Amino acid sequence: FLSQPQDLGIVAVGFSGGQPKPGVDAAPAALIESGLLTQLRDDLGYRLHGHDAVHSFSDVVPAQDPPHRGMKNPRAVSAVTRRIAEQVYRHAKEGRLVLTLGGDHSIAIGTIAGTAKATRERIGRDIAVIWVDAHADINTPETSGSGNVHGMPVSFLTGLARDDKEEFFGWLTDEHRVSVKKLVYIGLRDVDAGEKRILRENGIKAFSMFDIDKHGIGRVMEMALAHIGNDTPIHLSFDVDALDPMWAPSTGTPVRGGLTLREGDFICESVHQTGSLVAVDLVEVNPRLAADTDLGAHETVRAGCSLVRCALGESLL
Amino acid sequence: FLSQPQDLGIVAVGFSGGQPKPGVDAAPAALIESGLLTQLRDDLGYRLHGHDAVHSFSDVVPAQDPPHRGMKNPRAVSAVTRRIAEQVYRHAKEGRLVLTLGGDHSIAIGTIAGTAKATRERIGRDIAVIWVDAHADINTPETSGSGNVHGMPVSFLTGLARDDKEEFFGWLTDEHRVSVKKLVYIGLRDVDAGEKRILRENGIKAFSMFDIDKHGIGRVMEMALAHIGNDTPIHLSFDVDALDPMWAPSTGTPVRGGLTLREGDFICESVHQTGSLVAVDLVEVNPRLAADTDLGAHETVRAGCSLVRCALGESLL
Amino acid sequence: FLSQPQDLGIVAVGFSGGQPKPGVDAAPAALIESGLLTQLRDDLGYRLHGHDAVHSFSDVVPAQDPPHRGMKNPRAVSAVTRRIAEQVYRHAKEGRLVLTLGGDHSIAIGTIAGTAKATRERIGRDIAVIWVDAHADINTPETSGSGNVHGMPVSFLTGLARDDKEEFFGWLTDEHRVSVKKLVYIGLRDVDAGEKRILRENGIKAFSMFDIDKHGIGRVMEMALAHIGNDTPIHLSFDVDALDPMWAPSTGTPVRGGLTLREGDFICESVHQTGSLVAVDLVEVNPRLAADTDLGAHETVRAGCSLVRCALGESLL
Ligand SMILES: [Mn+2]
Ligand SMILES: [Mn+2]
Ligand SMILES: [Mn+2]
Ligand SMILES: [Mn+2]
Ligand SMILES: [Mn+2]
Ligand SMILES: [Mn+2]
Repeated sequence: FLSQPQDLGIVAVGFSGGQPKPGVDAAPAALIESGLLTQLRDDLGYRLHGHDAVHSFSDVVPAQDPPHRGMKNPRAVSAVTRRIAEQVYRHAKEGRLVLTLGGDHSIAIGTIAGTAKATRERIGRDIAVIWVDAHADINTPETSGSGNVHGMPVSFLTGLARDDKEEFFGWLTDEHRVSVKKLVYIGLRDVDAGEKRILRENGIKAFSMFDIDKHGIGRVMEMALAHIGNDTPIHLSFDVDALDPMWAPSTGTPVRGGLTLREGDFICESVHQTGSLVAVDLVEVNPRLAADTDLGAHETVRAGCSLVRCALGESLL
Repeated sequence: FLSQPQDLGIVAVGFSGGQPKPGVDAAPAALIESGLLTQLRDDLGYRLHGHDAVHSFSDVVPAQDPPHRGMKNPRAVSAVTRRIAEQVYRHAKEGRLVLTLGGDHSIAIGTIAGTAKATRERIGRDIAVIWVDAHADINTPETSGSGNVHGMPVSFLTGLARDDKEEFFGWLTDEHRVSVKKLVYIGLRDVDAGEKRILRENGIKAFSMFDIDKHGIGRVMEMALAHIGNDTPIHLSFDVDALDPMWAPSTGTPVRGGLTLREGDFICESVHQTGSLVAVDLVEVNPRLAADTDLGAHETVRAGCSLVRCALGESLL
Repeated sequence: FLSQPQDLGIVAVGFSGGQPKPGVDAAPAALIESGLLTQLRDDLGYRLHGHDAVHSFSDVVPAQDPPHRGMKNPRAVSAVTRRIAEQVYRHAKEGRLVLTLGGDHSIAIGTIAGTAKATRERIGRDIAVIWVDAHADINTPETSGSGNVHGMPVSFLTGLARDDKEEFFGWLTDEHRVSVKKLVYIGLRDVDAGEKRILRENGIKAFSMFDIDKHGIGRVMEMALAHIGNDTPIHLSFDVDALDPMWAPSTGTPVRGGLTLREGDFICESVHQTGSLVAVDLVEVNPRLAADTDLGAHETVRAGCSLVRCALGESLL
């Protein structure tokens, strides 16, 4: 679906306002320092665009940002994700593959909105989303217990949550949205009761860790990709907390019983092999957490780089 | 098969006399302190019964307890398991699901005897036993090298070992016993030569770690449950040493190459989904062991809680 | 295919010249000290031959050994592997199963050459090779970046690399070689670009970690053994770095995302069950590396012993 498949638009986002723990904004720099972009260019042959800066978008973050409908930092997250949407949109409109390095998972409001709009305009197609995560991130402001927006992006992207005011995600329009029918979850294992109800009521396809143990990751990917269909552009949004803390301890909301790094890499390789990938997000790496444990941050950054390289075409043989 | 499926009888047993390492008697308190019973009540909706005390049964432990047929502490283990059998029986006779928190695995002489008897009386059915363990625990006093009774419970429960004297398990009668045909092992990887012969000669169904690697845990559970049949009450006896020491280091006889926590949870969820579960044991958590390693005891207790919650109905989606 | 299947020829090789890190020469002593040979004799019932010494072959290692075609220590590796070939040949010619404890993986030039020649002479059959490794070890001197011969053994053994001079592996003749059609790799995950081309161009059967995740280790072993055919003598060459560093950290070139110990044991058990095994190598255990981490060397040695015992007939049930 890409006109320039060897051109890679990079959006590096140093933003942590969708959740309370500082440090996730340092992830893009850590990933880049460990050599990720060099590998993408030299080993995988991509031409990079937009890789010269990590964006904090501090110019659009207001000094005062009281809660709205329970959401914390609502104006900041709305404004930052709107800017991300524009950046991703510009790359995608050129027919480039887009890689976004977060940042917390709230930024996917921007990345997916940008890809969805650009892909509709460029080739008249709706995108599908593969959301790899321990969490469903589909709370509405009203079902959320914490008010952290990184637990709500899917809700805003599918239109399950909406707001009239432009400063509170009112800028999202139908052209930015994706259908719940085009959404597939992989790796879920910590889903709120309210979210479980949302998934059921909307018939959303989800493969939990139980399904992965039952069928194996090979069969789960077959089923996930079959649900999407083989003629649909795919946006892959990968939350590093989908991996087990054994492989990725440095993340804000780790949950045991997760994917092995091998399974994570396998998911990414399988999506790449479809030839339908149009955008990838890697989010929730937080190099400040678990930094005291044995190489925790280092391992998590390495795991993140491995996931991205696999999604972008690295293969073992 | 339960008349009161939301009523949960709790038998917390602080007993370590079936093996030589102190500390396994501290497991019920550790599991309860970490919130297990609260979770069962608040998150899974059970009404709890008998949860007000951890029983050490010290009143029936004799001062002198010399070996009998090589068994160590034979009078103590016999008397304690007899009392456990009575407690489990009373819960099961009421049609309640029964959860026993050990203690070493010798206590399963009591739990299974109690369930078997009550289920026969209440609904006229024989129970099946799913024994999840690194070990087969099917030595007779004569084949045992160590004399520790926690390596013999299956032998006494199936009638392969018997003793006339009431003080040495002579109190076990046919109504307490289970058929070797109704027994399925999962997770075996450290089985004595004598035990291998017993398993073969009696045609006992056993899935070793080799089988789990060969078929995957999903297929193994299908085969295990097919062997039992879909119309049979199930007693699940889970020895935490079935898990790999990576997930459960704090146990008396750890053996490498074990189940992942995910596989352990999967087994428990699969058994729960049958709707045939009548009793669960969790045994051999020893918070005093591996306490010096990185969070060993804490992790083992958490793993134990996770197994119990999955067996009692927690699911990911 | 063995006339004396309970006779086990042991070749213990304390050699590290195929790569730069000292310590891999200490592996045979460490494996033996941890009880491996006693277990093979007492638990598995083998009669041992040649187990009285660890060979360093220092008499054939020259004082000066400048590079040849980029190869480091070429005269030493050539001379030592020639001696290994003779020792393995003598055991194999007697119809014994042969176990070689390395040493770095360059020694497989000797072990496979010895088995190939003896098996042709004894029963007129070509052997197949199952090479379990994170690496393909199939560089030629010209494609190798490092010049370390432990990355080239498969190239010399298949004839893809050749040298006229006897002192530089010129002693290898057709009777020592194996066909690329009779070679199967398992566990690959770090393969050079040049090696990938060699594998493709020669149609060599290889199962990477991607394949293991996709199909499961059970199905992969079925496919691997089907490729070889059920009537072919098998030489199993197991590089401990095929295991994930979580289980085998003490090795010279660890690569993440590897086999679990369970999968490694499963491979060995599966090969044993064919009844076609004629020789086993265990290489690249380096007890000097990762010795500072938590029990690293100890765990790696234990893992190595476990792999060997499984290949030689230990089973769980
Ligand atoms: Mn998450
Ligand atoms: Mn997320
Ligand atoms: Mn056990
Ligand atoms: Mn047990
Ligand atoms: Mn290797
Ligand atoms: Mn190797």
